[in-house]
Amino acid sequence: MPRRIAIIGLGLIGGSVGLALKRAAVPDVEIAGTARTRSTVQKAKRAGAIDIECGTPAETVEGAHLVVVASPIMTFRGVFAEIAPELAPEAIVTDVASTKADVARWARDTLPAHVHFVGGHPMAGKENGGIDEAEATLFEGKPWVVAPSVSADEASVQTVVGLAQLTGARPVFMDPEEHDSYVAAISHVPLVLSSALFSMAFGSAAWPELAALASSGFRDTTRLASSSPEMAHDIVNTNRENLLHWLDRFADELQRFRATIASAEGAAVLEAFARAQLERDNYVLNGAPRRDIGAEPAEKLNFADLLLGSKLAGMMRKQEETIRQAEARVDEKKR
Amino acid sequence: MPRRIAIIGLGLIGGSVGLALKRAAVPDVEIAGTARTRSTVQKAKRAGAIDIECGTPAETVEGAHLVVVASPIMTFRGVFAEIAPELAPEAIVTDVASTKADVARWARDTLPAHVHFVGGHPMAGKENGGIDEAEATLFEGKPWVVAPSVSADEASVQTVVGLAQLTGARPVFMDPEEHDSYVAAISHVPLVLSSALFSMAFGSAAWPELAALASSGFRDTTRLASSSPEMAHDIVNTNRENLLHWLDRFADELQRFRATIASAEGAAVLEAFARAQLERDNYVLNGAPRRDIGAEPAEKLNFADLLLGSKLAGMMRKQEETIRQAEARVDEKKR
Repeated sequence: MPRRIAIIGLGLIGGSVGLALKRAAVPDVEIAGTARTRSTVQKAKRAGAIDIECGTPAETVEGAHLVVVASPIMTFRGVFAEIAPELAPEAIVTDVASTKADVARWARDTLPAHVHFVGGHPMAGKENGGIDEAEATLFEGKPWVVAPSVSADEASVQTVVGLAQLTGARPVFMDPEEHDSYVAAISHVPLVLSSALFSMAFGSAAWPELAALASSGFRDTTRLASSSPEMAHDIVNTNRENLLHWLDRFADELQRFRATIASAEGAAVLEAFARAQLERDNYVLNGAPRRDIGAEPAEKLNFADLLLGSKLAGMMRKQEETIRQAEARVDEKKR
Repeated sequence: MPRRIAIIGLGLIGGSVGLALKRAAVPDVEIAGTARTRSTVQKAKRAGAIDIECGTPAETVEGAHLVVVASPIMTFRGVFAEIAPELAPEAIVTDVASTKADVARWARDTLPAHVHFVGGHPMAGKENGGIDEAEATLFEGKPWVVAPSVSADEASVQTVVGLAQLTGARPVFMDPEEHDSYVAAISHVPLVLSSALFSMAFGSAAWPELAALASSGFRDTTRLASSSPEMAHDIVNTNRENLLHWLDRFADELQRFRATIASAEGAAVLEAFARAQLERDNYVLNGAPRRDIGAEPAEKLNFADLLLGSKLAGMMRKQEETIRQAEARVDEKKR
């Protein structure tokens, strides 16, 4: 009998997870999926993102070894409550939501003790969502945050790492609270800036002239403003304090630039822009600076074995050490 | 004897103008070019952006019918002073700089009365500059602002419109002061935001973690931070008041978003992001709202004829009317 992977929510991310898994052709696996509307489920089936169309989350997780919750964050509590009584013992539950701390709390409060919750967040997206935009290659080369709950066992953590690797993503271990602060800075602040910039221009009486002149720079800087407003709402709702903190840091930085510009000191102006340019070029060319808590297993894990619960002790020792180091680092920061 | 077009400055924009002109294969035209370094001039020749390598601006404009100044803005006064005594009677001088009011003043103060100055600004670019990045198609479909001086005659204005059209750009008439305010909003503010956002992230102690998580959203929103710092410096120097004005409007808009986010009123949060999304999607799909002062000639002008000074009376009547309307509109705004 094939092992079941359940996907709840078949939008851009849920649909792309399905397509990526199907492309990887893991043997003896069937993918069951559900979504808010029947037509989305049918589209996902036709697109080859799922094998089995399901009507409800409860039906979808029946007998599943791995459950991927990919519906909007604000539906999570309801979904967790609905699937809790149906989850098989030792089932692994993961998710793909933009924030992780609230999700981890809800999982702890709602899911039964006999399942393993390992939060996840693939850092990939497009400004337009929905199953029609789903792609098997959406996650390739992108970071995929893995944020295990305290009670998740190592095999479950490895399974979620394996899922991320199967899609071509780069797994990165992170504490949920840490994750939420970081994504506020590099993902949620840009979303707010983008929306505020577009609103400023659109709200101006000169908008027809501004629009006639706008070119690729304006287009790129405001691209995120076309993101789903529901997603923005859910992000604000589950990451408000971090977002406000980083928005204030951004406002401070902007005021520093403003003061430099107003000062009319040519050398200072040049330096402010030159520093940003040099460091960004360095980042684009050479990637992120070395970081010791990334999950880079010595060998590519066999996802099928993991899903089947094979012995992993050897492989896992390395990973355990990595997680311990990550935790030590988080503790150190908290001191 | 072929008519000469002189290009002073052979970076991304100057080089691309040369390539676009060569691709359009205007008959009986030769392109002379110069740049700060000899190696750039040689590269431009090899790339096919120019026909004749020149050592100095003065040498380049000798006998030229049309001069395109494409060096950094802060060199303009020096370039104008150097070429002034060499310019042929009735020569047309245009430029491609990011700001137009200071340039118009410098042209009026420095260029002889017997030449026609028509400012220009193709709204195209890339984060990396230089002749190696130049492309014949850089301007295709992009706005190209045409800002004539009061003393420029109609044939000169039409010649610059024709130049823009030859490159595939969409000419847009605009008063220099008006232009500078508008580009501050949709081009220079995004540049500052982009640089400030990158600086905020890079300046944080958490930069290694932020960099490991950053994905396409952060990359796009900070793309402009990789622009030339010299260009940023020159923009600040020649458009300071407009830039500060729009930075303050942006800061106000950002504070409005911040207040909505902090209020924790779900409906208000949703509405703020939904409005930006709807209007941006509408703009991306349907383009800029109708604007009555765009230059869309009834028939595509013959650039070669224009450069040769053919009779243009018929064609021009329409254009004159367009400019009159634009001026009336500017006057109305000033009231």
